Amino acid sequence: MNIVLLDPRQTESDLWSIRAKRQLEHLRTHVDVQVGDTLKVGIREGKRYLTEVIAVSDQHIQLKPIAEEAVPDKLPVTLIVAMPRPKVLRRLIMDSVTLGVEKIILLHSYRVDKSYWQTPFLQQLPHYVDLGLEQAGDTLAPKIELHKRFKPFVEDVLPTMISAERPAYAAHPYTEQAMPSGIAHPCTIMIGPEGGFIPYEIDLLIKNGCQAVSLGSRIIRTETVIPYVLGRLFSR
Amino acid sequence: MNIVLLDPRQTESDLWSIRAKRQLEHLRTHVDVQVGDTLKVGIREGKRYLTEVIAVSDQHIQLKPIAEEAVPDKLPVTLIVAMPRPKVLRRLIMDSVTLGVEKIILLHSYRVDKSYWQTPFLQQLPHYVDLGLEQAGDTLAPKIELHKRFKPFVEDVLPTMISAERPAYAAHPYTEQAMPSGIAHPCTIMIGPEGGFIPYEIDLLIKNGCQAVSLGSRIIRTETVIPYVLGRLFSR
Repeated sequence: MNIVLLDPRQTESDLWSIRAKRQLEHLRTHVDVQVGDTLKVGIREGKRYLTEVIAVSDQHIQLKPIAEEAVPDKLPVTLIVAMPRPKVLRRLIMDSVTLGVEKIILLHSYRVDKSYWQTPFLQQLPHYVDLGLEQAGDTLAPKIELHKRFKPFVEDVLPTMISAERPAYAAHPYTEQAMPSGIAHPCTIMIGPEGGFIPYEIDLLIKNGCQAVSLGSRIIRTETVIPYVLGRLFSR
Repeated sequence: MNIVLLDPRQTESDLWSIRAKRQLEHLRTHVDVQVGDTLKVGIREGKRYLTEVIAVSDQHIQLKPIAEEAVPDKLPVTLIVAMPRPKVLRRLIMDSVTLGVEKIILLHSYRVDKSYWQTPFLQQLPHYVDLGLEQAGDTLAPKIELHKRFKPFVEDVLPTMISAERPAYAAHPYTEQAMPSGIAHPCTIMIGPEGGFIPYEIDLLIKNGCQAVSLGSRIIRTETVIPYVLGRLFSR
């Protein structure tokens, strides 16, 4: 937790207050926060501030804003990922949010186990988004969409997201063209499930405007490939 | 598991055999391997082959090599990481091996909890190296070293690893110079603990030839920053 994320209604009076149990526990146990300390605070969907701790009690920590701070820029990228196993999903959401992905789409695919769509983690996504934002020092949650049918998404939705200025790259091991690097334009990235997209899916993606691109001969897990690709694409 | 890693002694006769319980279980449960199937196999510290399954029993799977395959190239990088929490260590080793890091050094640092050096995971590192190699399709284990004293390492060992052709970059949030990208030369990367290196440590690193470089204003967890940095550095 590198900032404390507050709801706008917690910052309406002159003194702001932290009341969420998770945040209070973290600040007491890991930070040992004391009156007079400074604390970085972000207002959900708003600005970021350096604040001073005015009071600490069991029920709340009171803060006074001192100075505005910059909210980090987002990466101009939409990440479309085949729905992963629940444990991987949690990490994937946190990492994507931490790294500044603008929009995340979870998509069904032939090699995705249907049971993954039933995981209780899906109800907890906002919590993992919060953890990612608090890690990064960001205040703006990415949009998250779920698409449970591959073909209608790829044929009807995906083409509306692709243009000459905003290409879409599908990571695919069996292709010659390499994933680009150090780009200066927005884009969409598609990451397949464990075992990859099936040939039918790759063909449909290409037919609908996606470029199949390779990351070399090493086969990388979904949760590892996301930071790897983001580091590569936006390295300017 | 994208290849099955075998010891050279398992490949001495005409027919090779898989006998390790972990590998047999995986191949039966997840791959449902049958006589006549092809299977990718790597010989530890040696070559990689496409093989044909000749026999499947409870005790072993027998294989016949068909053709040699290329072992993926390593990244020309030494990764020096402040010893992380045990759970993070496991992921960090697997990911670094999967991505092709040549050498990994685990280092003590002021903000590293001393108890981390007592974790039983340290005895299991070879197992996590195997998992990383089998994921990537690689056969060559990276060298792993443990250095429990920061100052002697930085003053006596680190300078011998740095030259004009092989710079060392320490990821540090509070510096102007950006982490390079798309490089074509070998290098060493240093990643601090949760909370970062302390100023004394950063000063000592710089005095001993390291460049402090920033990854931007987002604060990224150790296990996420490693694939992110590797994707950025070796994106050519």
